[in-house]
Order: sequence, then C-alpha cells, then structure tokens
Amino acid sequence: MEIVCKQSELNNAIQLVSKAVSSRPTHPILANILLTADQVTNKISLTGFDLNLGIQTSFDALVNKSGAITIPSKLLLEIVNKLPNESPVTISVDDSSDNILLKSERGSFNLKGIPSDDYPNLPFVENGTSLDIDPFSLLKSLKLTIFSSSNDESKQLLTGVNFKFKKNCLESAATDGHRLAVFLTNNEQINDVKDVINEDSLSVTIPTRSLREIEKLLTLKNAEKSIKLFYDKGQIVLISSSQIITTRTLEGNYPNYSQLIPDSFSKILKFETKQLIDSLERIAVLADQQSSVVKIKVGDDQLALISADAQDIGNANESLSVAFSGDNFEIAFNVRYLLEGLRVISSQYVLLKCNLPTTPAIVVPEDNLSAFTYLVMPVQVRS
Amino acid sequence: MEIVCKQSELNNAIQLVSKAVSSRPTHPILANILLTADQVTNKISLTGFDLNLGIQTSFDALVNKSGAITIPSKLLLEIVNKLPNESPVTISVDDSSDNILLKSERGSFNLKGIPSDDYPNLPFVENGTSLDIDPFSLLKSLKLTIFSSSNDESKQLLTGVNFKFKKNCLESAATDGHRLAVFLTNNEQINDVKDVINEDSLSVTIPTRSLREIEKLLTLKNAEKSIKLFYDKGQIVLISSSQIITTRTLEGNYPNYSQLIPDSFSKILKFETKQLIDSLERIAVLADQQSSVVKIKVGDDQLALISADAQDIGNANESLSVAFSGDNFEIAFNVRYLLEGLRVISSQYVLLKCNLPTTPAIVVPEDNLSAFTYLVMPVQVRS
Repeated sequence: MEIVCKQSELNNAIQLVSKAVSSRPTHPILANILLTADQVTNKISLTGFDLNLGIQTSFDALVNKSGAITIPSKLLLEIVNKLPNESPVTISVDDSSDNILLKSERGSFNLKGIPSDDYPNLPFVENGTSLDIDPFSLLKSLKLTIFSSSNDESKQLLTGVNFKFKKNCLESAATDGHRLAVFLTNNEQINDVKDVINEDSLSVTIPTRSLREIEKLLTLKNAEKSIKLFYDKGQIVLISSSQIITTRTLEGNYPNYSQLIPDSFSKILKFETKQLIDSLERIAVLADQQSSVVKIKVGDDQLALISADAQDIGNANESLSVAFSGDNFEIAFNVRYLLEGLRVISSQYVLLKCNLPTTPAIVVPEDNLSAFTYLVMPVQVRS
Repeated sequence: MEIVCKQSELNNAIQLVSKAVSSRPTHPILANILLTADQVTNKISLTGFDLNLGIQTSFDALVNKSGAITIPSKLLLEIVNKLPNESPVTISVDDSSDNILLKSERGSFNLKGIPSDDYPNLPFVENGTSLDIDPFSLLKSLKLTIFSSSNDESKQLLTGVNFKFKKNCLESAATDGHRLAVFLTNNEQINDVKDVINEDSLSVTIPTRSLREIEKLLTLKNAEKSIKLFYDKGQIVLISSSQIITTRTLEGNYPNYSQLIPDSFSKILKFETKQLIDSLERIAVLADQQSSVVKIKVGDDQLALISADAQDIGNANESLSVAFSGDNFEIAFNVRYLLEGLRVISSQYVLLKCNLPTTPAIVVPEDNLSAFTYLVMPVQVRS
C-alpha cells in the first residue's frame, strides 16, 4: 500500500473512527484502526470497531498502490495529530513485514502493523428493514432521551434508548425506572421502503454507549439531508454519504411505558423554566448533602416554596412565582432527576403536572403539542 | 454578626481563600473558612488555612454587627457561586447557636457554623527579616522554576523552590535530582529593611504546593506594585494591600547547585525554539511508549537528527536545522525533562550546550544574559 493524503483529512478521519476503538480491547487487533486504500477510486477508508459499535469513514487521497493494514489506534492518533497542519502525509506499507512508514515533511515514523486479514468485518445488513431518517430529528431525539437511560449494566434493555419508527414519525423513549423521557418527532423521510412498517411499527433498542458516539457524529456533521438505516438480526447499520456506523441492538421487548403516563392531572404548576432551574440548582447544594430530596409546596399566594433539609448541616428555601391550578399541596423529588429533565427543555415556560404526592408527575414544555414528556416518580417524605 | 455585601465580592474572596482549605482536613474546623466582620472599619475578612498555607483576604461591606464565625468551605463556595450575580447577600449569625443565615433576593440558607475560638491563628512574624518584593519578578521566578521541583515527598527540601534574596536581586532554583532550573532576576525593591541582608543572602525554601497557589494569586492580581515579605522561624508571610499569605518553609540547607553547572562547553547547538519543541513533541509519542529517551545527533551538515526507538512498537526520526559548533556527536535525554525546560523559554532561539554525552548539559535562551539556566542530565544509551 502507498498513499498520500492531507494531514487534516487523515487527522479528522482518525479522530472519528477511534471513538469506536475499545480502550480495553479483548484482542490486540481491536486496538487498531483498519486502513484500506483503493487505487481505482483513489479513496482511503478507515474503520474502528469494538464488536458493538463500528465506525467507517472514507475520503479522497492519492492512492499509488492499493492495500489494507491495521495500525495501533492510539499511537496513530497522537502522531498524526501532532504533524504540521495541512501538510501532505505519505503512508507506505511493506506487505511482507507489515511495517508501516509514515512520512511527513519533517521526518518519518516506523510502526508495526497487524495484517488486515484478522480484522473483523463490520456487520452488513443484506435483508431486513431499510428506512430513510432525517439526521436532525434523530439528533434531537437523542438529546431529549439519552440522559434518562440507566447506567446500571444489570438493567439490560434500560441501558439503551428505544426507537419506534412509525409512518412518518419517530418515537424515542428512555427510562431507568425512576424517570422516563419520551419524545415524538415528525420524520417525513421514513419511507416504507420494504413495506415492513404496517400497523406494527419497527421497534429497536440501541445501547446508550453507541448512541453517545452517534450523537457526537451527528453534531459534527454539516447538514446531511438523509441517513439510511438498515435493521436486521440485532444489528443497526446507519449509512450517510461518507460514513457507515454499525451498532448491535439490545434484545427483548422494551417496557410498555405509555401506560405509566397518567391521562389527567389534578394540579398543574407553570414555572419560568430558567428561574426554576436556577432555584433548584441552588437548593440542590443543600439537598445533595444528604438524600438529594427537594420539596415543592404551593399555596394560595401563587408562590412555590422550594426547600431542602440536610440534617445537622443546614437547610435552604426559595420562593418562586408560579401559575397554579388545583388544591394546595406538597410534593418531593430527587432534585437531580428533576434538573436533568428541565435542562433539555428550551421553552420559556414549563409545566409540572401532578396528581398525588405518591403518583407519577410529568414535566412538559408549555408549548409542547405533546412532543416531549418527562415523567418523574416523586419521593415520599415524612412530614 | 450581621453583614451585607455584594455576591461578586464575596464569591471572589471565597474562591481565593478556599485554595488554602484542606480537602482532607485533620480537624473539622479546618474544613471551614473563617469569616470576621468589623463594624468600625466596615470590613469583612475571610481566611483559609491548612496549617501549612494560609490565605486571608478582606473587602469593604456593610457591617451592622461585628463578629466572627467559621463556615463549611465547600458548601459556602457552592452556594455563593450559584447566587444571582451582583445581588446583595446578607449573612447573619446567631451567636448563641452558631447558626448562620445567608439570605439573597431569592431565598435563604441556614448553615451550621463552628465557633471561631477554635480556629488556628495565621502565623504572625513579629521579628525577623522583612523585604519588599516586586510581584512581577516573583511570578516570573515561579513560572521558570516550580516545574523542576520534585513531587516525591521523601525528597523533602527538593519538594520546594529555593529563593536567595540578595542585594537588589532574587535568585530562585528548583531541582528534582535529574534537572535543575535557576533564574536570576533584578529586584530593585529588595530593601535591606532590618539590615540582615549583608554578604550572606537570605535563603529560604518554600514548598511547591504553597507556591502553586501563590502563583495563581499573583496571576490574578492586577498589578500590585509591591509585596512585603516577612520571614522568621520557618514561616514566610507575604502581605499585599488586601491579602495576607502565609506558608511554612522547608528546613535545611538547600544543595549547593551552582557547582553542578559547568563553566565551559565544547559543543553548542542553536535551535529555533518552537521548531525544536514541535519536533520533540512528535518524537515523544514514540519515546513515551518505552523509556522516554530521545537521541540528538549532529553532524557536518548543520542538521540535527532527533530520534526515538521503542522496541517492538516502532521508531521515529526528524531532521532539524541547527547552528552547531564543536565535533560531531550524539547525546540522549529524557524527552519530558527537555520539553518542560524548553516550554518556559520565550526567546526565538535556544542554545543547548554540552560537553560529553555523560556530563550535564544546559539549555538557555539565546538572548539570555545568564538569567535562566536549565540543566539536564543526559541519559546513557547503548549504541
């Protein structure tokens, strides 16, 4: 193999695919990045794959000789990142010894590669379902749900986000058992390509760890219009113009979360979102000293009293104006759960809807049209 | 006690003194900040003290009632930092219960204080030596030496920086046994206040941990013209217009480092500083895979070959233009030591002066006037 490419393009590609290289690889070759070069198309392709998440990206270069090799990811990342910007980089591989010679204007690096034969293939979905996805809708879905998924590996399905691809709409949901985030977005691009989306929507649960990397990639991407999604046998493959992302899915039936969301509420509190967040963050300083419990109490005066009590350390309270309908009452939450839900809401006002101090409450943006619903279980406190 | 002050001023003061509050206090009160208020002068003073380093700062406020209390540092820091900016903050203390009530426009916090009686006094130097110091010279001394001191607590004196206050000049030095940084600066402000600086200069060694905080404080300070330094019985007290910093010194005679620096050199290499740093940083990627050893080889062609070899992993080399006088030779260094010394040098060119591959080499800025000298021991390599 022999290629010449720009430092900046090579550097970007390595940064991208190294996200899918395991930091604790189970096999030496999984610590490497796969580099393939095609003399006919003058394209280079880089691949990182930890057996769960795979990222492949390709770009134009001068390919003098086709070939494939795997290169230690960390070392390559550090070296290329430090090479002079925009300068040409030459990579040549001695096919008999797997020695890699990386040359820049200033000097050269010799690295030991591992032959590409042993590198696992990215999952390839031949049959199964295929959809078009609007990347902006997908990114928004991730931002509004990922944080609610569980970090506890024993909770299996709950360590992912569930996606339901329906006719022209995408529903995403995540829950860790204490709170639930559900987001519904239009996706005009969902086309019923293979006629598999009928009354039963396609439901897949994707591990949060993969989704966090996908979120970063989507944030980087400059306005790609459409992404192709393929699904078959526990594997999702996302294909954009120059990248392929693969991730396994979590097997099993995602809990039927919609039945948890109450249909009606006896108390509705309307807060200025930023004001409520600021207050809760201050009160959280005290709350976090012990149980992270914050109490919200509303009375006749259209004021909400937000308070926390940390025994032997101190207590805190603030009054906040609230538009309130219903009977006077008091309810308590884990302040972290409440804050995490509020922080993804961008509308000026937010509604906190409750029934009893022991039944699920929901937080929704005031201008919602039922697109985002955040359910939180209250905490029972002795009073 | 009852005071009213600005959130921003209180916040800045807490940030400052909390640097001297221990994260693992040996006594509960040492996790607290001492707050004292004087109704006569309308001044508030805050103190943090970990028994080694002490920082006290004061500012104007409305003091309705004098008093003193100690408040949990972390809690106070977090709470005040989150209060609305520029808004007034009221702190009142119930003297009988030591309960602290902190009120802002939006709400209130109750905290449990500890009476100030048990808080240790900052060291006070009554007799001994007193000097005026130029804060800019002190800051520069710290930037050029601190990094060379040892992190190994068993090395006692070497975990500090040694300062020699001489007539109108300040010499600072730090070494960890592998390298040595020495900086000489004018200090027109060193006045022989108590006539103790005669032919014997005042020599004190201050712990690096304290100096790092002093460095931060000096960086923050907007151009104070002069700082008073007092020294007596293992304590340094630095006094500026609104702050007092105290630190214990390290006892013992600092090694006579000047005898380590060779008088003459048979080889002198002149590099472009930035070019040399960039090259070394790239080569370091390979060097750091094993021993961190980098080799520098010069020949007749006015090129320096910089290289590193990591067995079984790879090797790297770069050629760099060098102005060189002396015989062709090769020398090896720990690349980290070399880089750390080079990074504090701001001149465009740098000189590397050597004798044998086994004797100390020094790095100096080209326009030096012998103000900064960085000595590095070479590494012996089999060739």
